[in-house]
Amino acid sequence: MRILGIDPGLATTGWAIVDFDKECNPIVVDYGAIITPKGVPVPQRLLEIYSDLEELIEKYKPELAGVETLIFYKNVKTAMSVGEARGVILLVLEKSGIPVKEHTPLQVKSAVTGYGRADKRQVQKNVQMLCNLDELPKPDDAADAIAIALASSR
Amino acid sequence: MRILGIDPGLATTGWAIVDFDKECNPIVVDYGAIITPKGVPVPQRLLEIYSDLEELIEKYKPELAGVETLIFYKNVKTAMSVGEARGVILLVLEKSGIPVKEHTPLQVKSAVTGYGRADKRQVQKNVQMLCNLDELPKPDDAADAIAIALASSR
Repeated sequence: MRILGIDPGLATTGWAIVDFDKECNPIVVDYGAIITPKGVPVPQRLLEIYSDLEELIEKYKPELAGVETLIFYKNVKTAMSVGEARGVILLVLEKSGIPVKEHTPLQVKSAVTGYGRADKRQVQKNVQMLCNLDELPKPDDAADAIAIALASSR
Repeated sequence: MRILGIDPGLATTGWAIVDFDKECNPIVVDYGAIITPKGVPVPQRLLEIYSDLEELIEKYKPELAGVETLIFYKNVKTAMSVGEARGVILLVLEKSGIPVKEHTPLQVKSAVTGYGRADKRQVQKNVQMLCNLDELPKPDDAADAIAIALASSR
């Protein structure tokens, strides 16, 4: 089973491709982040996310996608901008016929550390350990995307 | 000059095609709303908005689009869901090479009634009068989309 984990954002969208064998052991195939520059108009940034994600799907052909969903935001402007990125991401997944699982950060943390209030560092360390990675995945958004893929395998 | 006005929403996206002659008099060509049912998964609803908007653009070939942008929301959940619809809409416009003007509700109301705090009914009446329409455009979201197109012509 190949899962695409996505941590959506207009500036940075973390992504990870994780395979799971029959015992559900994760093998990280690839990860990274789609970064769009601040000065560029929003529609152009959204098209960048759209195209890059489409390429990733074509290259890795995931069977399932996990996408983080947030319920609380510091402010409405952030919620709106993450929403715009999420909208484009969900659209690409639907167009590609990939089923989507949505997870709150609490669910992701629980899946990776067994504890919903674990801090970022703990999540990253567990991701590294669970996936047998030589180093902590960078950037943070990519590590989060691996964690989201792990949560989606449950 | 042909302008596509859009009032974005996941459940209802109002749209209007308005032509402007050399004196900037508006001629309403068509209007309506893309409605997506509540029970359907969000990715599917976003694809519906995407496809319908793409069809409208192909049919009417607008040169410019006006999209409403909100700064305040009752809650983050609404902001997120409008953001998802907005993301898909801005993406389609960018893919089609159509430049986008964004307007706050205050700017739209000012453009149509000369008064930023005009109520919905007053905006609709002025839209009807300015565009020489026999009746109030329905649904409200379509009337709003005409108002947004009018604001974009300024």
